[in-house]
Formats: sequence, C-alpha cells, structure tokens
Amino acid sequence: MIIRPSVSLAALALALVAGTAAAQPVAGDPQTLEKSFDAMISTADQMRWLQDMSSAPNQVGSPHDKANADMQLALFRQWGWDAHIERFDVLYPTPISTTVEMVTPQRVILGGQEPAIAADPSSQNTAGALPPYVAYQGDGDVTAPVVYVNYGMPDDYDALEQRGISVRGKIVLARYGSGWRGLKPRLAQEHGAVGCLIYSDPADDSYAEADPYPRGGGRPEAGVQRGSVQDMTQYPGDPLTPGIGATASAHRLTRQTATTILKIPALPISYGDAAKIIAQLDGPLVTGAERGGLGLAYHWGGSDAVKVHLAVRSDWSLKPVYDVIAVMRGSVYPDQWIVRGNHHDAWVFGASDPLTGQVALMSEAKALGQLYRQGWRPARTIVYASWDGEEPGLLGSTEWAETHAAELQRKALLYVNTDNNGRGFLGAEGSGELQHLVNQAANDVLDPRTGVPTAERGRAAILAAQYVAPARSSPELVEAARSGGELPLGALGSGSDYSAFLQHLGIASLNLGFGGEDQSGGSYHSVYDSYYHVTHFDDPGLLYGAALSKLVGRIVLRVADAPRVPARYSDFAAQVGRYVDQVMTLAASQRERDRTLADLRRDKVFTLAASPTDPVVAPVDKGVTPLIDMLPLQNASDHLKRAAAAADSVLGRIDRLPPATQAQITAELASIDQLLLDPVGLPSRPWYRNMVYAPGTLTGYGAKTLPGVREGIEQRRFDDARAYVGHTAAAIEAYAARLDAAAALGRPPA
Amino acid sequence: MIIRPSVSLAALALALVAGTAAAQPVAGDPQTLEKSFDAMISTADQMRWLQDMSSAPNQVGSPHDKANADMQLALFRQWGWDAHIERFDVLYPTPISTTVEMVTPQRVILGGQEPAIAADPSSQNTAGALPPYVAYQGDGDVTAPVVYVNYGMPDDYDALEQRGISVRGKIVLARYGSGWRGLKPRLAQEHGAVGCLIYSDPADDSYAEADPYPRGGGRPEAGVQRGSVQDMTQYPGDPLTPGIGATASAHRLTRQTATTILKIPALPISYGDAAKIIAQLDGPLVTGAERGGLGLAYHWGGSDAVKVHLAVRSDWSLKPVYDVIAVMRGSVYPDQWIVRGNHHDAWVFGASDPLTGQVALMSEAKALGQLYRQGWRPARTIVYASWDGEEPGLLGSTEWAETHAAELQRKALLYVNTDNNGRGFLGAEGSGELQHLVNQAANDVLDPRTGVPTAERGRAAILAAQYVAPARSSPELVEAARSGGELPLGALGSGSDYSAFLQHLGIASLNLGFGGEDQSGGSYHSVYDSYYHVTHFDDPGLLYGAALSKLVGRIVLRVADAPRVPARYSDFAAQVGRYVDQVMTLAASQRERDRTLADLRRDKVFTLAASPTDPVVAPVDKGVTPLIDMLPLQNASDHLKRAAAAADSVLGRIDRLPPATQAQITAELASIDQLLLDPVGLPSRPWYRNMVYAPGTLTGYGAKTLPGVREGIEQRRFDDARAYVGHTAAAIEAYAARLDAAAALGRPPA
Repeated sequence: MIIRPSVSLAALALALVAGTAAAQPVAGDPQTLEKSFDAMISTADQMRWLQDMSSAPNQVGSPHDKANADMQLALFRQWGWDAHIERFDVLYPTPISTTVEMVTPQRVILGGQEPAIAADPSSQNTAGALPPYVAYQGDGDVTAPVVYVNYGMPDDYDALEQRGISVRGKIVLARYGSGWRGLKPRLAQEHGAVGCLIYSDPADDSYAEADPYPRGGGRPEAGVQRGSVQDMTQYPGDPLTPGIGATASAHRLTRQTATTILKIPALPISYGDAAKIIAQLDGPLVTGAERGGLGLAYHWGGSDAVKVHLAVRSDWSLKPVYDVIAVMRGSVYPDQWIVRGNHHDAWVFGASDPLTGQVALMSEAKALGQLYRQGWRPARTIVYASWDGEEPGLLGSTEWAETHAAELQRKALLYVNTDNNGRGFLGAEGSGELQHLVNQAANDVLDPRTGVPTAERGRAAILAAQYVAPARSSPELVEAARSGGELPLGALGSGSDYSAFLQHLGIASLNLGFGGEDQSGGSYHSVYDSYYHVTHFDDPGLLYGAALSKLVGRIVLRVADAPRVPARYSDFAAQVGRYVDQVMTLAASQRERDRTLADLRRDKVFTLAASPTDPVVAPVDKGVTPLIDMLPLQNASDHLKRAAAAADSVLGRIDRLPPATQAQITAELASIDQLLLDPVGLPSRPWYRNMVYAPGTLTGYGAKTLPGVREGIEQRRFDDARAYVGHTAAAIEAYAARLDAAAALGRPPA
Repeated sequence: MIIRPSVSLAALALALVAGTAAAQPVAGDPQTLEKSFDAMISTADQMRWLQDMSSAPNQVGSPHDKANADMQLALFRQWGWDAHIERFDVLYPTPISTTVEMVTPQRVILGGQEPAIAADPSSQNTAGALPPYVAYQGDGDVTAPVVYVNYGMPDDYDALEQRGISVRGKIVLARYGSGWRGLKPRLAQEHGAVGCLIYSDPADDSYAEADPYPRGGGRPEAGVQRGSVQDMTQYPGDPLTPGIGATASAHRLTRQTATTILKIPALPISYGDAAKIIAQLDGPLVTGAERGGLGLAYHWGGSDAVKVHLAVRSDWSLKPVYDVIAVMRGSVYPDQWIVRGNHHDAWVFGASDPLTGQVALMSEAKALGQLYRQGWRPARTIVYASWDGEEPGLLGSTEWAETHAAELQRKALLYVNTDNNGRGFLGAEGSGELQHLVNQAANDVLDPRTGVPTAERGRAAILAAQYVAPARSSPELVEAARSGGELPLGALGSGSDYSAFLQHLGIASLNLGFGGEDQSGGSYHSVYDSYYHVTHFDDPGLLYGAALSKLVGRIVLRVADAPRVPARYSDFAAQVGRYVDQVMTLAASQRERDRTLADLRRDKVFTLAASPTDPVVAPVDKGVTPLIDMLPLQNASDHLKRAAAAADSVLGRIDRLPPATQAQITAELASIDQLLLDPVGLPSRPWYRNMVYAPGTLTGYGAKTLPGVREGIEQRRFDDARAYVGHTAAAIEAYAARLDAAAALGRPPA
C-alpha cells in the first residue's frame, strides 16, 4: 500500500503500461500458481530445518545463531534469491554471574540452569547456553525482604497499598502473565523496590493447563522463562541507537543514558524455587484471583521473616546481529515491495520460538524460488527477511527498518510477520484494511486436522465458545461467525518484528500464526523449547507449519501480482468506529466509577465493609475523570466511514477505469497508512508515531488503539487525552481526505 | 401469622378484648423492654456454655449429646420455662468399620480418624467420636477404578459423557461444594457407580481461602468433612417414618423400603488422601473450573491404572433423639405461638456447628426468663426448642413437627431458626412478608466490630462489592443498599431445621446468622470444629453470638407482643413477581440455548472446534424447550401485587378500625402462608408441599422458588412444568384472595 505520494511520473507510466499484465502471472492463472506453490511446501523440509537449526543454543552472539544465518543465506541463494547478510552491532548484555538464594529464615540456593530431562535430547546439550536471566535488567547485588506482588501490574500495587504494604527497599516476587514481562521490574523499580524475581506460576502455564513436561507440554517444576525486560514500550531495538540504525558509524548513547535499561537487578526463577520462598512469607493471606496455583497458602510478605539475596553481573559489550535479507525483484513494479519476516535468534534452542515460524518462511522462500525457476516473475518486489536479535528487543528488524527508513517508506507496501507457530486456530492481527485479504486467504487454506478452511474452523471455535462459555463470548465475533462472515483482525501491539514497520514507519502490517491447541506456553523461553517438545506437543509433523506457509505464501503471491493491493477501507473505518466508541465508553464509565468511589469513600463504606482478617483501606481517591470533548474524533470517524465507502466503491470497478486513472488512484492510496503517523509521536515516547495502533505502556504486548487518547484517559493524563483527541482526529481526517481524493479520481467527470 | 382460619369465636373475643393491651407489655414500652433484654445477654455465659457443650463428642446417641439435652432442660427450668424433653427413636446408622485404600498402582492406606493438632485440646480428646463417614450411605465392599467427577453435579456428568468416560462400575471421587453433599453419591449411583468418595478440595475451604489450621482456620491437609447423604430432597427426618412422627407406636418402613437411603457405599476423605489418588489418575487432563486447587495435574481417570478399595459396615439400629422443648405461655393469645429453634447435636464436638447458634438461643431464653421474673408477660406463647439429630437429616425438628402438625398449623405464627453462627454480615432468609420485620431488627442491633447497625454494615458490603467486584454485584441489591432501603430476604432451601415448618406445614419461617468473616468452613463437620477454632478464627469472644441473641430476641419480643404480626405483604408480592420473571426468563433463555445447540450440532461446529488433546463431542441434544403458557402465573402475580398493596394499606391504619374488625383481619391473615401448600406436593416428592419455596432436587441446600415450575423447566419435565403453572398459580391466587378478604374487612361500608 505504500509508494511515496510524490511518485515519479516514470513509475506511474510504468504502472500504466503494465496495468493488466500483472494480473496474469507468467506461470499461469493465480489459482494454478497457488496450487503449484502448495505442492512445493514440504513438511519434511520443515522438520529437517527445525531439527538442525534447534540443535544447539542460538541466542544472539552464539556460534549457532551465526551458523543458522549463514545456512539460510546459502539456501536463499541456492533457491535463486538475491540474498545477503546485514550486520548491526548492538548493546546486548549476557550474564557473567547470576545469584538467587533465600538467606532468611534459612539458606536455600535457588536459580541456575534448568536440569536435563531424560526424554528430551536437547535438554542434555546445553553447552553454550546462557543461564536463566532477563536481558537489560540492571546489574546489582541486593539482599532484602520479599513481597509477593501477584502479576506485578498497577492493580496489584493498588492492592498492596490498600493493605499498607510497601515494596520500597524490598525484592518483589512477581508471577509471569497479565502484562508484558518487562513491566514487572519497571513498575517494581518505580515503586522503590531494589530487585525483582519473576516466576512462572503453574496456574498460568503448567498443571492447571497442561501436564508438566515431559508427560505433557506444560512447564515442569524447574522450567524458567527467560526474556527481555528492555522497556520497549518507549522504543524497541538497540537501546543505544533509538530511531537510527546501529551501524558501525552510528552515534550511540551510553548504557547510562539509554532509558530502556532497568536500574535494578532482576532474574526469572522456576515455580519450584518460587514455592520455597512463598511457603515462608507472612503478612495477610492472598486470596482470589491474586493468588496463583501452587498447592500452598500465598501471603503478601514484606517482613524481615524472609530475605533473599539477588545478584546479577553482565557483560555489557556490543554484540553482532545478523539479518538475512533476500530479494526477488519485481518484474513490473520493482519499487513496490512486499516485506516478509520472521526471526531466527532464540533464548536457548528456540525450536518453537522462533523456528516453527522460521521454517514456514523458508518453505515459502524455497517454493517462490521454484516458481521463479519455472518462469513465474512477481509483478512487485518480494523481500524475505530472517531477523536476528528479536528476543532481546526486536533488534534486527528495528535496526534494519531504521537504517532503511526512507527507502521503506517509499517502497514497502506491506510487512507480513510471523513468529513462533503452534497449532489450532488462525490468529491474525494487523492493519484493518487488510481484513478482506486475510479472510480470503484463510478461506482458501485448509486446516490440516479437520480438512475445512482455516477460516471456517475459526468460526466454529467462536460459535462453540458462544455455547460453552457464553460469558467470555464477543457478540460481534459471534454475529460475524454465525453469518459465515469475515472475522476482524486483532490490533497489533508489540512483541514481534512488525513494530518498527507499523508503529514507527506507518507501513501496513500483518502478524499471522496458528495457536490455541499447542502447549508451547509450557516451554516458552526455556531450555525445554526443543525439537522434542514441538514435535510431541506443539505441532507434531509440522502440519500447521505447512498451513502457515500456504497462508502467508498466498498473501505474498496475491499482493505481489494483484493490479492493486487488495485493501478494503470500509473494514478499517469500521474498526476505527469501534475504537472511538470504546474510548468514549471508557471515559464515561471511568467517570461514573470515579464518582461512585467518591460517594462510597464519603460514606465510609469501605471501612464498614472491611474484614477483620484482611482489613483493606478504601481504594485510593484518584479524582474524577472530567468530561472530555470527543467530537473531533467522532467527526473524523464519520468522515472516514463515508470516504472509505466511496473509495471502496470506486476500487470495486477500477478495472473499468482508464489505465492512467487506475495508476493515479493506486498512487493516492499507496502510502495512505503513513498518514496515521504524527511526527510528535505518542506522549513521552516519540518513537511510536502511529495514532491508531501502539503497544500499551502498561500492557507491553497488548495493543492500545487510539493510544494517545485511550492511555491518556486510563492513566489520568487528561491534558494528554485532550491533546491527542486533536492529533488522532487529524490523522484520521488526513486518511479520510486521501480516500476522498482517490474516490474523486474514479468518478466520471461532471 | 398462623391461626386457624376457623378460629373460635372465643379466641376472637379474647383477641378483641386484649387488642391494645398487647402493645403495652407489662415491663414497660417495647424499647425499654428490648434495652433490658440486651443488658441480660452475656458473652461470658455463651463462652462457658460453648466450652462445656463442646467438651466431648456429641453426635446423636452419644452420652454427651444426651448430657447436653439434660443440661439445657435443667437450665430452661431454672430460668422459669415450662420445659420437657421429647424423645423420638430414629434410624441413625453409625459406622462399625470404614475402609478406604488405594490398591493399584500401589497399596496406600487412606482414611481413618483425623489426627490431633497440638494447639487444639479438643482434637486430642476424640474418645467416643465416630470416624469420618457419611450417614445413610449404603453399606458395601467394593474395589474399582476411580473417576474424578469434579463436584459430581449433573454438568460434571455431561462433561464426562462428552469425553466418553463412564462411571459405571467405578468409584467416583467428588469434591465437596457446588451442590449438597448427598447429591454426589446419589447422582453417582444413578450413573452406575459402585462407590463414592467425597473430599474437601483446598480450592474450596483451605489455602485458597484461609491458612490451614492451626495457623489459620482453613481446613488442614488431614481434615475431613462428615455429613449426611440421606436424600432429604425427597423428605427429611427419620427415613422410616415419612410424614409422621417417629414415636414409639409409629408405623415404620424397613431400611430396604426407605427411599432416602443410598444403595452404594460412600466415605469422605481429606485432601491429603485425595491428592494421593489424583496424582495417579490418567485419562484427559482436567482444566479450568473443573479442576481443584491441589498443586498437581488433575486427570479424569477411569482406567484400571488406579483402583481403590472402599468398604463400610454400619450399625443400623434405632437411636434416640432428645428434643428439649421449653414453653412460656402467652398472657393474651396463648394459642398463638412463636417457635424458635436451633439444634444441639453435632458431628464431633460441634463448637461452631451447631453450638454457636445454640448458645445464642440459650442467652435469649435466659434473658426472656429474667424479663418474665421481672413481671413481663408475653402476649403470645413462646416455644423454645433445642433440636437433636439435625445433622443426620433434620430428625428432631422434623419428627416433632410431624408429630404436632395439627396443633402447629393451628397455633404457630412463625418459626425462627438459627444454626451455626460466624461473624461478619447478617444472612437472613425466609418468607418474603417478613422482610420488614427482619430489616427493622437489623437496623436496631449494632455490629459488634464497627458499632453501626448490622443492616448498615450489610449495605456497606454490597456497595463496596459493587465497586470492587462489579461483575458479581446484583443491581437490585445495590439499588436497595444505595438508597438505605431494605435488603430482601433470601429464599429458604434446606439444610437446617426450618424445613418441616415452612415446606411441609406452611408456617412462615426465618433463618438468621452472621457470616462472611469467619473461617468455620475450614473446620466444618470435622474434629477441628472446636472451642479453640471458634474462639480464634470464627467469633472470638462470641461477640456475634451476642449480636445474634439481640437480633433474634428482638424478633421474638416484637412478634410476641405486637397487636398483629408485623408482616408486609407487598414485600412477598414483589418477591413472587421476581420469581415469576425469573422462570419466564429461564424458559425463554433455555429455549434459545436449545435452538442454538441444535444449529451448532447441525453445522458440526463442535467437531470442527474440538481439541486434539481433549476431544469432546458435541453437548448432548436434549431437545428444544417448548413454549410454556405462563399466563396463569403472571395473572396470579399481578393479583397478588394488587391485593398485597390493598391489605398493607388497611394494616397501616388498623389501629383506627373497631377492635372486632381488627381481630377479624388478624384471623383472616393468620394462616395465610398455609395457602401456599398444595396437598399433592411437588413432583415425585409429596412431602414438600409449598408451591413457592423448596430445596432444589439438584441443589440440596439451595432454594428453588416456584419449584414445580422452575425445576420442571430445568429438568425438562415439561408436562410437570405446565401442570405446576396451574398448581402454583392457584396457590398464589388463594393467597391473594385471602388478602382481598382481609382488605375488604378494613374498608368503610359502602
């Protein structure tokens, strides 16, 4: 969808000349082409690559990570792609020593590498693996009492405050889940904690959901989730080079001035270790949703009865990341790019994360190469990217996107991302106008287990859930599923390599993968994320790996060859309309709730209702949410809906317009997503410029749509909320105006 | 509220003469009287009685149970009451031997008496205590594979059936909770199981809610809940004498012909024991709400991998129960009775259940005796009852009520029940027209911890919950609480001694107690229900025991002395209106859900959505709920509302009517609750005759209102539902017509 608006006349002329040729690919009609493509997708290939690439630890900087990049480079070239490796040098800390031990009431050594499991050969082969740690924590050596903070999210700190428990000077013990990992030590640090332990509670990824490994795929007692705690809600990528590529010549911040690095030490631990600490904690009992699933009483802790020694020392040198970039030049529109990526680095072996997605990408590349060899030529340029350094903070993709920002904004129509792939149901998130494209592809790719289209299986899941668990069912989804209609795309937050494309550069993006029926949550970011685990519990036979290749391959083929990128703007307008409704409801219900709280506090209701065994004071009075004028947003949304309908109508009959008009319309719409960017960026995080999609500052992975407004309300920065009603409405108006302009070109002259 | 409608002219004349005298009790005005009463309530008395009465095991037939009855008889007499003991001889099985052991994959002895806990002296004094068992199971000796059935309720059997797991020939392992204990073995038996184990899962009454005893009041690892599994949803009381008193001369069924006794053996076990079994089970994993809180993976089981040997042999001889009955004769209306009861038998020591309630009753009786000694004479007769044999099946109260049915229906205006009492918030259930009476009393009794009226504290809890947990909040309750209005009474199901009065005889009833802030759930029906537990974790100092005495004492005093029983019929009419709305919504939503299921089955949605690791077939097609004509119920409810408003209006100015008219109106209304009885009773359980209130056949304790209609719909006996629309509407119409008649008496002649 993206060509520079000031596209050269030469390019326009070329588009004009080649207008319909693109619809007839060299190798035959699209359906034949896709059938050929499908036939070239081999699960045997994927199994072989997966086993090989996950045979040794392949974290950033490891020999096997580099070997995997080199191997892919060779394969891409062998398959006929114009491929190269692009290297960046990034700040990536690796642990020199990690210490976690309980010192009071008795000394118990905790932490360390995960033990081997007899059934899993990989787990016996950890030479070169890093011990469990979280990247970009702040080195330190502290001994302090422990406070259990549940998920360590803002609500949990409210619950602690209501009980008069402070984490100041303490080490918090947070469980994984609810929000992104990195928020836990960041919020702990903001509340005065001196250290942070994060553990995997069995309620979240072990025996409550799956049999512990290796009986099932659930997290075993000694399993630990590694990960990044870089504050990527500010900006992802190399902490030393925000906004620019981490090339040899880049001007770098120092570690001390980089704002995305934590100040306090943090380590992840297993639930076996966490249980030993929790069993000793005192203070009020933790009940309800705030306790986890261990077979013991949880207490908030905080006294001197339990002290833990936590120390981390890291090697803070720069490390290389190796992106493998492969290009297949477009025969008609070489300057219109479809970029397709997945990362290849992992925390240990990474068989599921990221290699299940990576081998699907490789299958696609191999098949496209074979089609090319058979004479097919894509109309547009296809760029396949195998990113390095995603795990520590989307390093490879972000540095590449920042380095090539100008060219990408000129040429990239679309970025299609995958990452770890499981089995079950298609999960699809992305820019709203791509809904139709994705649904069409999902209608044409069969679910490997049931033999029905993946889209139909997704609809079945929604309808079954509506009956089985109606309370958790979305009426909107049910309505769409019931009528066999299209399922809307989820909004993109963060957590994988699309961030720089969508949120920094304004390039329409998709993120695709199967899930819901695998047990990869139990091995996630641990030593047990292995070939054995994947082939037993996540995607035996890699059947869904093949399905993913067929799905993404279709999208790539269709976008590469279509006369115009198959966007449907009414879908985006409908989504934006829903987002506007949501923020209005949010403002109104938060205001109502604030006023209720004020009344209840005045009437001392919380004092009267307090329990003798767990007396909690009244929730903190945060003031009353003011009325906020949303009219500019409502106007913009209305404008967008009308403009989108008109544009879609013109696009529906674009074939009947003169070729020159077609090219003009395509040029108008190519870069339209960049109009959602505002150069000022979001409050306190200018790197994030998209006014419609962003990761939440307090969710991390989870998306916040209309983020300037929504988070302004949620976080009670009401001046920000008011200001971003303006910024956001302006972006949407600009987008709508561009649609108006495109539609006007398609109307018969008066 | 109950005098025979055909009250004798002599009684009417007496009422007429004494009309206003009753409003002025001998000892002074009501407020002064109540103040004097309050001053006589002593927590020291209650502590002493509690310690003494819980000092040894006091189950039915035990020496200490008889000693407690004798002690109470002596006290009542000492306090000036006309007291006696009434004995019945009932079938009450006690275990001779109980065996539960895992025999496959290895032999592990389970079960047996609960171990002593050092901190709790009672637990070291179990001589004469029965081992953990459930009364009225069917003796047997079986060895069979084990199936985990979650709560063992109908939905759980659906979940098993969907997974193709049968309990036929197996032993089920059910956790306590969700429905009444006795339903678990009954449903197991109906599904072909040969035995039933019931255990207390820590998710329900231990570390998820409270620290295990003695650190807190939660159930310790070895704690076991005893109880009755008699099928009291058919009829409570002695299984051999349904509908008649178990007197010496009564005609008795045999054990074999009594339908409320199980056919299969059953035993309760601890979660320590249950964990040993669950850890060995295979079959599909149990997830979500169906698993409990043990720190391990739950499986449904069912294979030969785990076998358990379960054997029970009992002494099935008749045992004596001793009801203590104390009477204080009314000075004005001696044939209008207020009956007040609590039971004195327990499973072991019974400090909480039932003695916390029993000592509150004793405090009331002592204070009433002192008032009597000071010259006060109640206008109506007060009957205090200390029931025996409640635990096995409401034996003492049911046999007494059946024996004296005719006299009670002639004389008893009201039955007020208590049972175990905790601390926190007032729980009040009962006949809808008593709402105002209870709310007034609750406005006048202060919460011991906060010093505000108990009603206000109840409102505070509802308002706080509305803010803290809005999803679980009832808008109707919140609205009432917000305006400082009255909180509706809950409907009475079963589980304590009001059943025979309300549901068999049609006598207006109340059940009252404090709870929500105690931890008595953790000691419930175990050896650890002790003086130590109560005074540390349930009601330290018995402050809420005193509050309960003041609350119930007020209700007794007010009903005893008021010119008319303070009923407000509009409250009952409003409740009935809500019940009618509920059954109409139930029928409509069940029909909608049935039709959705039919559609989804037709479209094979469940097959397509099925998981590879836990494939469940489609929910069973139970047909589509038909449209059921509810007009008779709607008409009756409308009639009731109008009639109640008119009657309340007349009662509001009854003082201004001629005394003869007052007496006539009182006579009309006295037995009005008996009009809710239909002599045919409820479907398949004729003992239950109340068309508005019943325990659910599939909930046990939980009430079902308009039970003939509601359960007919829920259980898909649609002919029953149609028939009971008629029965129920007729009862409500009769009630409304009686109100019309009373109101007509109060209108000025035309």
